[in-house]
Amino acid sequence: MAVNTTFERPDSQLVADLAAMGAATLHESMGQRGALPHVIKPIYPGMKVAGPALTVDGQPADNLMAHYAISLAQPGDVLVLDYKAYLESGPWGDVMSTAAQARGVAGLVVNGCVRDAESCRDMGFSIFAISTSMKGSNKLLPGQINTPIVIGDIRIAPGDIVVGDDDGVVIVPREEAAKTLETARARETKEDEIRQQLKAGKTTVELLNLEPTLRSLGLM
Amino acid sequence: MAVNTTFERPDSQLVADLAAMGAATLHESMGQRGALPHVIKPIYPGMKVAGPALTVDGQPADNLMAHYAISLAQPGDVLVLDYKAYLESGPWGDVMSTAAQARGVAGLVVNGCVRDAESCRDMGFSIFAISTSMKGSNKLLPGQINTPIVIGDIRIAPGDIVVGDDDGVVIVPREEAAKTLETARARETKEDEIRQQLKAGKTTVELLNLEPTLRSLGLM
Amino acid sequence: MAVNTTFERPDSQLVADLAAMGAATLHESMGQRGALPHVIKPIYPGMKVAGPALTVDGQPADNLMAHYAISLAQPGDVLVLDYKAYLESGPWGDVMSTAAQARGVAGLVVNGCVRDAESCRDMGFSIFAISTSMKGSNKLLPGQINTPIVIGDIRIAPGDIVVGDDDGVVIVPREEAAKTLETARARETKEDEIRQQLKAGKTTVELLNLEPTLRSLGLM
Amino acid sequence: MAVNTTFERPDSQLVADLAAMGAATLHESMGQRGALPHVIKPIYPGMKVAGPALTVDGQPADNLMAHYAISLAQPGDVLVLDYKAYLESGPWGDVMSTAAQARGVAGLVVNGCVRDAESCRDMGFSIFAISTSMKGSNKLLPGQINTPIVIGDIRIAPGDIVVGDDDGVVIVPREEAAKTLETARARETKEDEIRQQLKAGKTTVELLNLEPTLRSLGLM
Amino acid sequence: MAVNTTFERPDSQLVADLAAMGAATLHESMGQRGALPHVIKPIYPGMKVAGPALTVDGQPADNLMAHYAISLAQPGDVLVLDYKAYLESGPWGDVMSTAAQARGVAGLVVNGCVRDAESCRDMGFSIFAISTSMKGSNKLLPGQINTPIVIGDIRIAPGDIVVGDDDGVVIVPREEAAKTLETARARETKEDEIRQQLKAGKTTVELLNLEPTLRSLGLM
Amino acid sequence: MAVNTTFERPDSQLVADLAAMGAATLHESMGQRGALPHVIKPIYPGMKVAGPALTVDGQPADNLMAHYAISLAQPGDVLVLDYKAYLESGPWGDVMSTAAQARGVAGLVVNGCVRDAESCRDMGFSIFAISTSMKGSNKLLPGQINTPIVIGDIRIAPGDIVVGDDDGVVIVPREEAAKTLETARARETKEDEIRQQLKAGKTTVELLNLEPTLRSLGLM
Repeated sequence: MAVNTTFERPDSQLVADLAAMGAATLHESMGQRGALPHVIKPIYPGMKVAGPALTVDGQPADNLMAHYAISLAQPGDVLVLDYKAYLESGPWGDVMSTAAQARGVAGLVVNGCVRDAESCRDMGFSIFAISTSMKGSNKLLPGQINTPIVIGDIRIAPGDIVVGDDDGVVIVPREEAAKTLETARARETKEDEIRQQLKAGKTTVELLNLEPTLRSLGLM
Repeated sequence: MAVNTTFERPDSQLVADLAAMGAATLHESMGQRGALPHVIKPIYPGMKVAGPALTVDGQPADNLMAHYAISLAQPGDVLVLDYKAYLESGPWGDVMSTAAQARGVAGLVVNGCVRDAESCRDMGFSIFAISTSMKGSNKLLPGQINTPIVIGDIRIAPGDIVVGDDDGVVIVPREEAAKTLETARARETKEDEIRQQLKAGKTTVELLNLEPTLRSLGLM
Repeated sequence: MAVNTTFERPDSQLVADLAAMGAATLHESMGQRGALPHVIKPIYPGMKVAGPALTVDGQPADNLMAHYAISLAQPGDVLVLDYKAYLESGPWGDVMSTAAQARGVAGLVVNGCVRDAESCRDMGFSIFAISTSMKGSNKLLPGQINTPIVIGDIRIAPGDIVVGDDDGVVIVPREEAAKTLETARARETKEDEIRQQLKAGKTTVELLNLEPTLRSLGLM
Repeated sequence: MAVNTTFERPDSQLVADLAAMGAATLHESMGQRGALPHVIKPIYPGMKVAGPALTVDGQPADNLMAHYAISLAQPGDVLVLDYKAYLESGPWGDVMSTAAQARGVAGLVVNGCVRDAESCRDMGFSIFAISTSMKGSNKLLPGQINTPIVIGDIRIAPGDIVVGDDDGVVIVPREEAAKTLETARARETKEDEIRQQLKAGKTTVELLNLEPTLRSLGLM
Repeated sequence: MAVNTTFERPDSQLVADLAAMGAATLHESMGQRGALPHVIKPIYPGMKVAGPALTVDGQPADNLMAHYAISLAQPGDVLVLDYKAYLESGPWGDVMSTAAQARGVAGLVVNGCVRDAESCRDMGFSIFAISTSMKGSNKLLPGQINTPIVIGDIRIAPGDIVVGDDDGVVIVPREEAAKTLETARARETKEDEIRQQLKAGKTTVELLNLEPTLRSLGLM
Repeated sequence: MAVNTTFERPDSQLVADLAAMGAATLHESMGQRGALPHVIKPIYPGMKVAGPALTVDGQPADNLMAHYAISLAQPGDVLVLDYKAYLESGPWGDVMSTAAQARGVAGLVVNGCVRDAESCRDMGFSIFAISTSMKGSNKLLPGQINTPIVIGDIRIAPGDIVVGDDDGVVIVPREEAAKTLETARARETKEDEIRQQLKAGKTTVELLNLEPTLRSLGLM
């Protein structure tokens, strides 16, 4: 069990630029990598989150480590809590949102549930979770903070950049961030051109050159 | 099989006072008891419900007993229907919502699905369910009304107080209602103080005195 | 593997008239048939869709056939894609929505996930899916277009009428459309009468004549 | 609702020949069609079943139609019951197995659960189901017998040939049976040759000529 | 939180007599009540268990209370552990089976997973669980022993009789045990007669008098 | 996309020694790490597997990369295929088992399904999978071989040691293998002592010194 009280954070402008691309575009720009399981979604549609990951490796039905993690957070951090997808407990509520917001935390991503959904939303605190559950937690079990964690098949190191919107959450490794942004921008430019051509009457079969594949399969 | 046409209802002011506390706070105030499975949620975010439970023990894909139950309802009652979590049938629709609303029913909690979601919402009838399904029902199978039922691991007796919001549904046993309200109010007062101190810069590690546990686990 | 580039479309007024009935009423009017699995829902509450089905039999994690299908669509068509309920891939995004909208496609029903949820909604393109997933797709696998497909336990032939709202999606076979509309209208008329009588104080036990069944079961 | 008391049965030698091929080979021989959902499996490993389908369209938690269906069975029939995948009820037990066996029924396939698993096995009655559940059933709800039903995405008409083993259940449409048998036998012959060559040191990359695909993807 | 070190146990002959009836028959004999969720099954087919319930209300991923409970067990007891259906942890292994067996414990029923499946079977210790998981547990969280617990929709009081076989687990409340045995025996006698008549050529439609229902539904 | 045709393999005696410890003990000896999701189990109880991982990152419903991987296998290797938990396809059957066995492959672990279960068992080829599905696959999609993959929350590098039995599958990183073996042996020795003391009448509360925790929680 390890607790690292701090970690290297990425440049905040870089975070903001990545956030502007949207989660799905970032996923594509990394070669279709980095997407957390689709069940982790904003608890209300429209919530967005972006920032460096402060990781917490917790245990089902206990939030001791989450409390500890809030006390280590810096403004702009996104808390990423692995609660092992246990759904009949909500180890995060509005008191914790208040505590996190007081420290400038940008939002929460949890592999599990939260409670006090409405008041968290009303205070403008962004939460991405599998669902909501009102059931309370213990404050007794150990865990780890700011060590690499795995949610779904994605490894998340402290300081990796988290970007979430209605499509879910993507993790951009810190060392890939600049290159991913570049690829994402090029992709956006290309997609804008495609959109223009689609509106002008072209088809994606033409624009993405799918005819050879369709012909080789005997479908065209 | 038993049908009880009536049951003892709690004081309506007590119901209103409990409703004002919110579901999650009531759950905590009963020692983390009373929460229905987290999959039972308002069919549209923001719906709320509170009132004494009129219980129905039904069977999947049949709504005979639900019709019967509406005819026994008093103003302010909340119908709590156990349909055994069967999801490919919606045994409640807008005609039944109309019937229930005409009798002053405060809302519906169903361990199953409903249909006609939009029109039920438009008429202002609150429904908490697992999901929506348009598939119709039989009107042939027996069941029980106003006997204790169990949904998830929670026992619900007729007259117990139902409180639901975006965090889900909690059941407060009628005989625990007054004490639960008292505890909930004290809890709210204490949490308000904690929120003030958090905004003033304290941490939950300090305010909840978590340091001894963290130290005993070798994490601090 | 077969690709049919066209199919017989129903009368557009008939489609509009069916759409006005709502999905649940159509399901009932066909003798409780035609409802797709309840997990297929609008990706944002309130979306609606209606039109003849352009069917696509695709494979998990590949969207080659969906691209091909868009190029074959006529204004008003609804693309109905069977992706075999695989949830960790979103084989449809905003570029495809743009392509579809440019051809006048009325909306999408997919037995699977989509991505770019927000921008699809913002452009006014209706999507019914199991969930959202940002994970991208291949463009390599064969499939079929405009052959009968099965989703849940419902057979969907090209040209069958698709109607979707918050209650989910119903399929009206083209050859049953006129009769279903007639039955639905009669049903609506009857339900309106029932609603009036409920507001006047009657119960559904009386109006639906449930007393004999309740008596035969010894419950009344 | 319809009940057809009889249907056209396939030649019993044809059924036996198909059974000898095994379920997976038949599935491949029909162009990868006909497999019921993988969750329908023998209730004890090693059970096998083959015969013409006597179809029952039932409703969750009721077995009236199953009783009726047994009384219509001929020796060698396989009862195929659609109970809509409802798992918390076992609408078939050892009394029904006794009744079915007395009429020469070859076995049962059920989209749902059964009970009395051990005694059914001990009497040598083959059952393919999703799971076992001891919960009893009503005998009140209508359904259909010997009409086409759909389980998973497979249509089953009365008289279609059912073949089940540890890989699950496949449905061979009666009109495709002879051709499927021919294809299956050719496939078996070819696979035997492949097995010989594999044992002699060849690889499937060579034998299935996968190198061109691997090269075109830049992987070899 | 409460721990009761002992409870009133039923007569051991009564337990043995109930066990001889089998779980499904007991469920029917109580009016179709008492069955735990069907997902709780013997970890190897053929395991059986019977005895008074020593109940444990535990928490996911912690087995402190299970250890405590073993130390309170009497010969013949069945430990019934509610671990809240959390599946990615196996809070019971062969050391605990050894401990339990040393005290004469008759077996284990757990709403969760176990590990060391093979060695537990080899030592002849019966376990009914949802699945197996090798993941270890904490020994830190409080819980309750010998208080009523709820698994699925079934209330289990300490001293209630547990009977499990391949059909799953049924709970017979201690105060209903004698009457249930009597009903079960009568039921068995009646079913034996039915089996004889079925073998003699009768149908269940005749023997269970289903014709009136089928006729009233227009199916015969 | 990358394909590495070879990787560093661990000492075969070390693999055999680890296998003798059993999966659950290895998991505990690594500090409760390394267990694949509990749903991955032997397709028949009693199957065992051990060997260095030859990893395959595949895509749902396609087995091109699995064929390629077999051709790269060395005697003793265990193929570990990530098929993304897609369950309605069985991308591995008896022809592939024959091919793998001809090259001395020790067994298969697949995050997905297989088919031809019986014949694979009859030829003595060990398979660990989520379930069985007879549905066939394409041979068209790219993937990766012998790069690190993630299944559940466990990273698997080529050459890591795979050990599987009825408790599931554990992955021991190659660089931790020697130390894990040492810890496992010490643990076994200690557990044997505990077993002796349990048989002599001690309790785990005594032997594991749980009384202080129980007392601190007010439970003793």
